[in-house]
Amino acid sequence: MTPRSGADRDGKRPGEFEIIEDIFAPLATAPGALALKDDAAFLKAAPGCELVLTVDAMVAGVHFFPDDPADSIARKLLRVNLSDLAAKGAVPKGYLLVTAWTDETDYTWIRRFASGLESDQALFSMSLLGGDTVKTPGPLTLSLTAIGEVPEGTMLRRGGGQAGDDLYVTGTIGDAALGLKLLRGELPGLSGEHAAFLTQRYRVPDPRISVGPEIRGIAHAALDVSDGLMGDLAHMCAASGVGAQVELARLPLSAAAGAALSRDPGLIEAVASGGDDYEILFAAPPEKAGEVNAVAAETGVGVTRIGKLVDAQCGIVALDGEGREIPLPKAGYRHF
Amino acid sequence: MTPRSGADRDGKRPGEFEIIEDIFAPLATAPGALALKDDAAFLKAAPGCELVLTVDAMVAGVHFFPDDPADSIARKLLRVNLSDLAAKGAVPKGYLLVTAWTDETDYTWIRRFASGLESDQALFSMSLLGGDTVKTPGPLTLSLTAIGEVPEGTMLRRGGGQAGDDLYVTGTIGDAALGLKLLRGELPGLSGEHAAFLTQRYRVPDPRISVGPEIRGIAHAALDVSDGLMGDLAHMCAASGVGAQVELARLPLSAAAGAALSRDPGLIEAVASGGDDYEILFAAPPEKAGEVNAVAAETGVGVTRIGKLVDAQCGIVALDGEGREIPLPKAGYRHF
Repeated sequence: MTPRSGADRDGKRPGEFEIIEDIFAPLATAPGALALKDDAAFLKAAPGCELVLTVDAMVAGVHFFPDDPADSIARKLLRVNLSDLAAKGAVPKGYLLVTAWTDETDYTWIRRFASGLESDQALFSMSLLGGDTVKTPGPLTLSLTAIGEVPEGTMLRRGGGQAGDDLYVTGTIGDAALGLKLLRGELPGLSGEHAAFLTQRYRVPDPRISVGPEIRGIAHAALDVSDGLMGDLAHMCAASGVGAQVELARLPLSAAAGAALSRDPGLIEAVASGGDDYEILFAAPPEKAGEVNAVAAETGVGVTRIGKLVDAQCGIVALDGEGREIPLPKAGYRHF
Repeated sequence: MTPRSGADRDGKRPGEFEIIEDIFAPLATAPGALALKDDAAFLKAAPGCELVLTVDAMVAGVHFFPDDPADSIARKLLRVNLSDLAAKGAVPKGYLLVTAWTDETDYTWIRRFASGLESDQALFSMSLLGGDTVKTPGPLTLSLTAIGEVPEGTMLRRGGGQAGDDLYVTGTIGDAALGLKLLRGELPGLSGEHAAFLTQRYRVPDPRISVGPEIRGIAHAALDVSDGLMGDLAHMCAASGVGAQVELARLPLSAAAGAALSRDPGLIEAVASGGDDYEILFAAPPEKAGEVNAVAAETGVGVTRIGKLVDAQCGIVALDGEGREIPLPKAGYRHF
């Protein structure tokens, strides 16, 4: 970390040096992080491996609600990046963190933020490697560079999917989009339990780190569903030069999402296109179906076949239970 | 890159997808960057090497003037990170970029920003590897994760300096601090040429990438001067468990800084403690003086001995030309 100022001792919180030493240095568990006492970290991939790098930023009021719990903001920041690593088949190693605090970001908030990182980096076997701490007159702004590892040449790509491949998705789809609707007050009438589940799925995604490395050598193509299932499928199809058919009736739904859809079937659009799912969408040849099922069984994470890749000229279509085409917007979004 | 929205087509500028494809993808020259068409990049260190990672953020109005030229903002963002790599002895490989644009950030500005990156990444033999593009209602906010490479176990550290080591600094000191004073209107009366030089040194630092890798095996300790010479020296001394004597009369000054100091000798404080120099401060044993001079000769970058490391109990002192101690604030800062 390169703190910009030792002068930030206005009583509201300790200076940046103290915050780094007290709060963030304990998260720097890797030897190469040098306890955040140097200007850079060193990192070596395991023999035969290479590193996988990804970065995502989040802005208060754009990517999360400013009054979301600090620990869940931290966990989401880490997890959206872990989701990218997972979809690329990578095993997480470490991360670099940039925080632009506002005048309102107090010591208690920062402590709670760090506690979210602490619990999650333990869960995912990662170390903080470095970072930068600055002040901003604008909204709280965060970014995180996550680093994982794959055997050389095995990183899963968006491209590589082939017509005839089965299309799979992990976990359940649409929970986060419905959770966001709930937080906006646009989804009344759900039970408290279902509402809490969907909200949590929006706030703290479950990166499928256990699944990603297991589908290397099985999947032809993979990416994580962040912009919405149909939008991210379009990315995969563009990179692979194929089309796709998605059977909407096959989309894996949580009990909470199922309850919401039974009240309002029109919510299928939010489910299929809403985003923030952070599940892995992947394509694998039909002869690998047994191996895919074995991965699901071993990891305990549901993996559901939701359709197939087809020739490019067939486009990307969503089908209802009777095989009829349903118009759905393809492009996802996540601003609010 | 994971653009958050394809919906940002309000006429002011193309959407994030188009900006990435048109403006940033051409900067992704490394094979592992996958032309920014995937969710992550892959990167392998050369045989026997490991990676060195650092990240720095910049906020408009805090770390640069909002009306600074876009290309020089980009170059400063890249170069402050390269300065960290250089001081650690690393050879640059690539970088990940996070940009939080405002509503006022138009296509022309982004193009000019990217042109600054393009010229500098060519100069320093780097590739854009990935990034994230978001929108912010606050000030323009940028962060960059830079990745370099060193032979395994050779990264230069802040710690390791020993009492008796000579203390060296590259280039010239104080230009950027004086350049900032100039931009604030606090340094009248300089010639246009000198003013332009100091302003440029503030806006576009010269990371000593040619020197850093050459002092591996020579320097006991090294770091880059970003918070101010005396402040960063204090970091080195703390990490190394030593004190230091700096002979102020030996500080290498540019002609422009010399002219400013001759008008106002009190500016020595800004020179020694002001920050933003992005030179390398390093400690090497006296028997390596010949090798240090050879590095300066080979690289064409000035390397000046400015003092020595001493026992910790002697503290960190600045001496005038007659060897008398001069009180100077130790802690640097760079906010404005």
